Amino acid sequence: MSGMITVIGLGPGSVSQLTPEAADALQAADVVYGYGPYLDRVPAREGQRREASDNGEEIDRATRALTEAAQGANVAVVSGGDPGVFAMAAAICEALERGPSTWRDLDLAVVPGITSMLAVAARVGAPLGHDFCALSLSNNLKPWAVVEKRLTAAASAGFVIALYNPISRARPWQLQRAFEILRAHVPANTPVVFGHAVGRADERIRITILEAADGSEADMATCIIVGSSETRLVARPRGPALVYTPRSAGAFST
Amino acid sequence: MSGMITVIGLGPGSVSQLTPEAADALQAADVVYGYGPYLDRVPAREGQRREASDNGEEIDRATRALTEAAQGANVAVVSGGDPGVFAMAAAICEALERGPSTWRDLDLAVVPGITSMLAVAARVGAPLGHDFCALSLSNNLKPWAVVEKRLTAAASAGFVIALYNPISRARPWQLQRAFEILRAHVPANTPVVFGHAVGRADERIRITILEAADGSEADMATCIIVGSSETRLVARPRGPALVYTPRSAGAFST
Repeated sequence: MSGMITVIGLGPGSVSQLTPEAADALQAADVVYGYGPYLDRVPAREGQRREASDNGEEIDRATRALTEAAQGANVAVVSGGDPGVFAMAAAICEALERGPSTWRDLDLAVVPGITSMLAVAARVGAPLGHDFCALSLSNNLKPWAVVEKRLTAAASAGFVIALYNPISRARPWQLQRAFEILRAHVPANTPVVFGHAVGRADERIRITILEAADGSEADMATCIIVGSSETRLVARPRGPALVYTPRSAGAFST
Repeated sequence: MSGMITVIGLGPGSVSQLTPEAADALQAADVVYGYGPYLDRVPAREGQRREASDNGEEIDRATRALTEAAQGANVAVVSGGDPGVFAMAAAICEALERGPSTWRDLDLAVVPGITSMLAVAARVGAPLGHDFCALSLSNNLKPWAVVEKRLTAAASAGFVIALYNPISRARPWQLQRAFEILRAHVPANTPVVFGHAVGRADERIRITILEAADGSEADMATCIIVGSSETRLVARPRGPALVYTPRSAGAFST
């Protein structure tokens, strides 16, 4: 079987954050599969086909992409950010495992990208400077009780928490509920960062504290970072505050 | 104050994984500070000074870099991977907070990079495809009891775990002890990935299971990913197995 499939991370949005490896893999593809708004970011190439599909159709998209690769094509599948973080690489692996055994013989590569939490963190300092976790708030694919359990475990053990998929039309209350849970485990003045569409034209960053964090500030394109009790907020005369988590536990205790 | 300081992520090692944004920021700098082996990866530029320092001297390096920026230079500070993940961005923020108040007026930017766990994950499939955390095993900067508490919390709540700074000459036993703790909370056949120097000439990836994971396989340049009870290992006729964590909890339960 001569086909191949490459799952490619486009990074947060700006072409300046697309790696050369990802740009080369996009150039080489016969066809690119992805969610429409991500495909719009792929540099145009004469003769290359685009296969757009809706958000939420990941397994179907993965199956169609694998089918075409099995017929001999060089197929790219794109994700925003990193394809391995709440994105298409897991969907491709799952479709491959469930599919015909011959698919296991395909050339499969994953090209990493800058995932959203890293881009948001960079804009404000270094909130992920010490132990952290990344958690999807979507309960489409897992019970909400699992989300609550993980929020509680992570916050009580002192992890900084990056929240992906915070909200959608079908899931309007989850983020606000997550803040309520976290308030039981981390101090009210813990820094919280809302990073919307980082690296894109409509980028918007807001820094607040847990006590004042309002779930309705987020949308589907927002990644939220909630600090730990160690996370620091440093005011600056010009521009926004710095938010960072020191490398040492207790670095600022007296 | 006209100086500026940019903390730049070099990615895992290959220049094909260095973003254009990072390459441009490196070009623009008057001087580049960093750990020697990272400076060796920075493309040469006529007239640009290099200031190498040893690993473990982060706060001293940060202070010297900020001092020079405050004198008006365009200063770059480099980290392997992403500077915001167990790396120089937090050290710069900490030195800035502790330093003269005029430093808060400096132009500070952080340029994200592909962090090690993303590069390792991409090589084997999508082990970070669902909720995960990143934990440093170094007890130079936090008590070992905190590490044990976080390992236990993360594993019992079902997070996949990426281990950074797994081992060093001064910390020979921590990784083996971490595997012992994890064995009490996740199944013996949970996939474990050792990713050594990904993207560099001496890259080495090994996939095993928790029962067989041996701490002595790692060195300072290794990032380890320990799956959750949901993480799948899919054998393939050619090449290494795929390791991935499905996007849905219980995707393969009967």
